[in-house]
Amino acid sequence: MKLASLKGGRDGRLVVVSNDLAWFTEATHIARTLQAALDNWDLAEPELRGLAESLEHNSVPRDRFREHDAASPLPRAYQWADGSAYVNHVALVRQARGAEMPESFWTDPLMYQGGSDGFLGPRDPIPLADESWGCDLEAEVAVVTGDVAQGASREEALAAVRLVMLCNDVSLRNLIPNELAKGFGFFQSKPASAFSPVAVTPDALANWQDGKLQGKLEVELNGRMLGEADAGEDMTFDFGTLIAHAARTRSLGAGTIIGSGTVSNRGPDGGPGKPVDQGGVGYSCLAELRTVETINDGKPATSFLKPGDVVRIEMKDARRHTVFGAIEQEVRQA
Amino acid sequence: MKLASLKGGRDGRLVVVSNDLAWFTEATHIARTLQAALDNWDLAEPELRGLAESLEHNSVPRDRFREHDAASPLPRAYQWADGSAYVNHVALVRQARGAEMPESFWTDPLMYQGGSDGFLGPRDPIPLADESWGCDLEAEVAVVTGDVAQGASREEALAAVRLVMLCNDVSLRNLIPNELAKGFGFFQSKPASAFSPVAVTPDALANWQDGKLQGKLEVELNGRMLGEADAGEDMTFDFGTLIAHAARTRSLGAGTIIGSGTVSNRGPDGGPGKPVDQGGVGYSCLAELRTVETINDGKPATSFLKPGDVVRIEMKDARRHTVFGAIEQEVRQA
Repeated sequence: MKLASLKGGRDGRLVVVSNDLAWFTEATHIARTLQAALDNWDLAEPELRGLAESLEHNSVPRDRFREHDAASPLPRAYQWADGSAYVNHVALVRQARGAEMPESFWTDPLMYQGGSDGFLGPRDPIPLADESWGCDLEAEVAVVTGDVAQGASREEALAAVRLVMLCNDVSLRNLIPNELAKGFGFFQSKPASAFSPVAVTPDALANWQDGKLQGKLEVELNGRMLGEADAGEDMTFDFGTLIAHAARTRSLGAGTIIGSGTVSNRGPDGGPGKPVDQGGVGYSCLAELRTVETINDGKPATSFLKPGDVVRIEMKDARRHTVFGAIEQEVRQA
Repeated sequence: MKLASLKGGRDGRLVVVSNDLAWFTEATHIARTLQAALDNWDLAEPELRGLAESLEHNSVPRDRFREHDAASPLPRAYQWADGSAYVNHVALVRQARGAEMPESFWTDPLMYQGGSDGFLGPRDPIPLADESWGCDLEAEVAVVTGDVAQGASREEALAAVRLVMLCNDVSLRNLIPNELAKGFGFFQSKPASAFSPVAVTPDALANWQDGKLQGKLEVELNGRMLGEADAGEDMTFDFGTLIAHAARTRSLGAGTIIGSGTVSNRGPDGGPGKPVDQGGVGYSCLAELRTVETINDGKPATSFLKPGDVVRIEMKDARRHTVFGAIEQEVRQA
């Protein structure tokens, strides 16, 4: 089942989207918003599934689904907690900052509490007030959970995964070192994120296995492929582990979004790998590419995002059909 | 005007409370929840104010207001960002950890993104699974904002303050050093916070001045006064400055909660001051008391919270009437 929130009001309008993303049908008679559906999932889910089946059979009123009309599936959320499960990525970015990575990072998940009061729509511009902040994309996988009890096991946590999405976790790289030095984590360095046009239930994803989403996450910058790393590879912590980590000392409310962190694959030699145009799988953020450039050439050649730059993040199935729709965002001077 | 959310469902039921906290009247015909009122404040506020006036004149149906029946004013929120405006407190807690405090902390506000998917009610127990986590209270002042534009000035930010509350920002002290060392800020070390039974508009607070709430914040532990620091003193950053800091790189959605951080006053000599039973104003968290004990005696004498301990946080007006109602929470084995 695929769900989306059409733009309108602060929380959008819940619709069911066809598997091929061509059509939608209104679902507000079941739940006005996706959050409302998540709040009463046991009641809403079977009704939404029935509607989704009717939509596939063209037996309910339907309209063309346009990804531009979609807000993020949860236009705002009560929780957005982003892990950093591709430890490979952490190691590289730290290397670029000259910061050592403790060995415990391979066993104890990193996770930060992100702002969730308002997300950008998947086709909304990324507002940037100051280019010197070093704006970067981060292509990720994210899940939406139901209620999770404090102390939930990995298996219980996995069973609470309601929906899977893609994410662009916008980061202001040049603000990060100062914020992390202050010790309280990211704040100004993490403006609003964006999520894919549709959110998909795990059962509808052939490539959802053991709490990981397998498959190439295609990341383009200005129409050129920046990365096509496999989201299922080199993910040190699966979503069950990430959710259980988040729930260790407190319960999680329905509608909690948990992110994977920037998807990142090692190269065949275990190193950072190569850019796409050199035969590698490339990178899911500019910081990683800049790190590799620094390692190879002593300094980064790629600049961070500027007004006018366009980022695109998408995943396609075995038949090259889009699974979640595309996040496509232009950076705009704010 | 005083507003509260009576328990019921995930978001409670909006009521207007009389100034003396003796009575309430239903407000759900104006807005079902406090978040809904904040989402449409320009429309909801005048109607709620009219209702509040009618309640004071006993010209609408009313019922006894019982603080036990109240959830936190926002039982869950889209954003909870907690500052650390009493830099005095930060200096002391760091001193106890043996961590240096950079000079910039006096000019650049500290702020962390907190979990907001579910808050404890003001009289709800504090669930604690493991005593060794070092559970502490933190008595704070918090404000709820309307929409704040990215780049808002301090004055614009102050104008966006809709409501003022008290807060118990529960912290798991023994989990903090490891989390902060990881560099991503607090997560497991900050379980659910609780807020006061009622939230009050700034105009109804005689002691709201220049973005600070003046007056003694009374903090009791097991019926004994732990602290009575003045929330208006030694607050290095007022709420306007804190909100503007939060909005530097992104807009803030209506219903954002911004916290002051643990209220803390210096002693007359500029040092940490004395416990209440030694003639000082005491402390608004156990960590600070333990720090002072360590400075004086080489080791802390006070333990962190254990099951059965009861915390109470309240502020009274010049006539010793409660302003926000009391947060009163017993620690319970989870």
